[in-house]
Amino acid sequence: MDVVTTAQFYKKDLTAPTPHNREIDKAVLDIIANVQQYGDTALASYTEKFDGVKVKQFTVSNQEFDDAQELVDEAFIRALTQAKENIETYHRSQIEKSWFIERENDVVLGQKITPIEKVGVYVPGGKAAYPSTVLMNVIPAQLAGVKSISITTPPDKNGKINPYVLVAARLLGVDRVYKVGGAQAIAALAYGTETIGKVYKIVGPGNAYVARAKKWVYGDVAIDMIAGPSEICVVADETTNPRYVAADLLSQAEHDEEARAICITTSKEFAEQVVTELEEQVVQLERKDIAKASLQANGKVILATSIMEAFEVVNQIAPEHLQIMTENPSEKLSLVQNAGAIFLGKYSPEPLGDYFAGPNHTLPTSGTATFSSPLGVYDFIKKSSIIHYSKEGLLQAADQIIRLANTEGLTAHANSIRLRKDDAHA
Amino acid sequence: MDVVTTAQFYKKDLTAPTPHNREIDKAVLDIIANVQQYGDTALASYTEKFDGVKVKQFTVSNQEFDDAQELVDEAFIRALTQAKENIETYHRSQIEKSWFIERENDVVLGQKITPIEKVGVYVPGGKAAYPSTVLMNVIPAQLAGVKSISITTPPDKNGKINPYVLVAARLLGVDRVYKVGGAQAIAALAYGTETIGKVYKIVGPGNAYVARAKKWVYGDVAIDMIAGPSEICVVADETTNPRYVAADLLSQAEHDEEARAICITTSKEFAEQVVTELEEQVVQLERKDIAKASLQANGKVILATSIMEAFEVVNQIAPEHLQIMTENPSEKLSLVQNAGAIFLGKYSPEPLGDYFAGPNHTLPTSGTATFSSPLGVYDFIKKSSIIHYSKEGLLQAADQIIRLANTEGLTAHANSIRLRKDDAHA
Repeated sequence: MDVVTTAQFYKKDLTAPTPHNREIDKAVLDIIANVQQYGDTALASYTEKFDGVKVKQFTVSNQEFDDAQELVDEAFIRALTQAKENIETYHRSQIEKSWFIERENDVVLGQKITPIEKVGVYVPGGKAAYPSTVLMNVIPAQLAGVKSISITTPPDKNGKINPYVLVAARLLGVDRVYKVGGAQAIAALAYGTETIGKVYKIVGPGNAYVARAKKWVYGDVAIDMIAGPSEICVVADETTNPRYVAADLLSQAEHDEEARAICITTSKEFAEQVVTELEEQVVQLERKDIAKASLQANGKVILATSIMEAFEVVNQIAPEHLQIMTENPSEKLSLVQNAGAIFLGKYSPEPLGDYFAGPNHTLPTSGTATFSSPLGVYDFIKKSSIIHYSKEGLLQAADQIIRLANTEGLTAHANSIRLRKDDAHA
Repeated sequence: MDVVTTAQFYKKDLTAPTPHNREIDKAVLDIIANVQQYGDTALASYTEKFDGVKVKQFTVSNQEFDDAQELVDEAFIRALTQAKENIETYHRSQIEKSWFIERENDVVLGQKITPIEKVGVYVPGGKAAYPSTVLMNVIPAQLAGVKSISITTPPDKNGKINPYVLVAARLLGVDRVYKVGGAQAIAALAYGTETIGKVYKIVGPGNAYVARAKKWVYGDVAIDMIAGPSEICVVADETTNPRYVAADLLSQAEHDEEARAICITTSKEFAEQVVTELEEQVVQLERKDIAKASLQANGKVILATSIMEAFEVVNQIAPEHLQIMTENPSEKLSLVQNAGAIFLGKYSPEPLGDYFAGPNHTLPTSGTATFSSPLGVYDFIKKSSIIHYSKEGLLQAADQIIRLANTEGLTAHANSIRLRKDDAHA
């Protein structure tokens, strides 16, 4: 891996997003249409095709929850319970309350907060277990007051769900878990089947099929975001340890080959140390093939001419994860415009946030931190405006409302106001 | 129009949304691709085709702003200025601040609020003028701190922009207005052209082409919502005036033929009075043909057996606008789960909210109030999580983070923590 300048980086790497894969879209649209039409029958057929198992009962039974509990060790449950408490503490600060303001003439305006009634959480399956996904998606929904939470997750070849996922669900009191994955799970949550009830919002990460299915059902239901490849961006100087920087970059690079790990520094010597560390550490990793491919394709060490320039690059990238490993990192916060999560100092590596510290690990990827936020309690509520005018209040405003309505050519709007005005003056 | 029972309503009227129009999608995708490839040249060609005018200069000039000011009367400007103040007062309550919480071991967690840097506002053109759209979309963006706001709106056959729209833009200090409408305007804002800069979020209403273009660019940029046909739902009893109810229903029905105006009451006599009033009033309207067609297709007076049942219907419909015109309307607020804006009492008709009271008139339509909110200041900011751990804090958490990372098979994650732990114990 070479060290590049900011100009070289802008020119070569900060390009338009990959065009959509039409083949995936076609497959996903077929799946959605079939689930809408054939319901559970379509789910069973896709589960056999994609997960290689005939599932008789989509709903995870009590017995299966009990079995999972037996398989999981105590140390894991303790760590999970501590993570749950930390996540709850952080997200509790996000709870919003309804409010009202009073104006003259007995006019009251307000904003009422109501939880979304029904939410579906997608938890990926496949080779790995993702109990942290359960915590990060379910806890903010529960704090928002969502009454009905359903989890869908693909079964393995034996028709089982990963025990760590089931233990996490039970720890949070979610007992509605369905053995369905892929685009078919998203379609089932969006439109409902005999077994799986329709929800109003779908959250949670997934593969390309899940992501595209979410894009397609968006509008009919709400979704959290369309997740793309994941990034880390580390701004570092000589006051930190290049070994740590390299290890943190690699923790991102091991996710998948499309993951992006970028270090930005103003010191040429430090940049070279990071490159050396990356080369030494990567060969020792279990997932070294993935991490190497990711570094090769998307890894960068960028040499900036100043700390201001370094943060301009950060704001252009709008990274999912930003680590500031410089002197006085919190003083650099005001330079950050676009980032999903910001980690300050050398003892705040990204994996701390992925599992444990409390803030959500569902973060805007692929530059979408320019316009979107981490998953939070605010994703599970909606607002209603409240308007109460008195007779006096309305009469005082009547002529101006009529004037504005007439300008827009909406005379029945004007009439609704005029009728009341005429009555008052009769 | 007949009075129907709740059961009849559920069976016949509360059905799935209309399937997407493939012809529109095809046209919209072509437009987006051409604007991405040919930029301003594509914009000019589509503007000639759809708006019937050759536009030489997309950017509205200072002279054009001055000319507009001359054409607009003082009474309009006074009404607009008062509406602006009311909208600002209400939305100021939505401004959010960054926050931090301290935990033991010098651990600090927080949430940083940053405005979205660049926003595009679509203002419809065509036969009517929509200065209220300018106010409702631009004011919350400005209060959020958005630095760059661009307006696009289609020119008329003479290449002019409606003067009321320009006066509203200038009143708010927005001087970047482009003469482009339709799907081509959405594509320009999403991807940028020589003249129109790319934005990170697009807001504002539009026709079916604009709505579908927003759905297609969603993900590459943020959008406010995909607006569908508009609804009003009035829950009323004998304590109110059926003439007012009918006038308010008609103010919705005049929008377009797909608009839905629904009254729910528990009194058969009152229901019949509303029907009679509707029939008498509709023929007197300027836009009577549209209003009649809308009532015919989507208008309903529903007879509920109880007030509880009435609000169950409301929550199923999840109306854009809800008027509660019963005795003690504010006591019914707790029964409302899903509604965009809630108007309380007989002096709070919908047009008051459309123009003047202060809350936003961009509201979730077509049942999407089950999961989304009025446009607000919150739509123009984004959040970044902040995580700062001290050495002690990280060391205390280290084993649990490592345990969770290993469970998910992400050993480089575990390694990033272990490296720091080993150093501390060395």
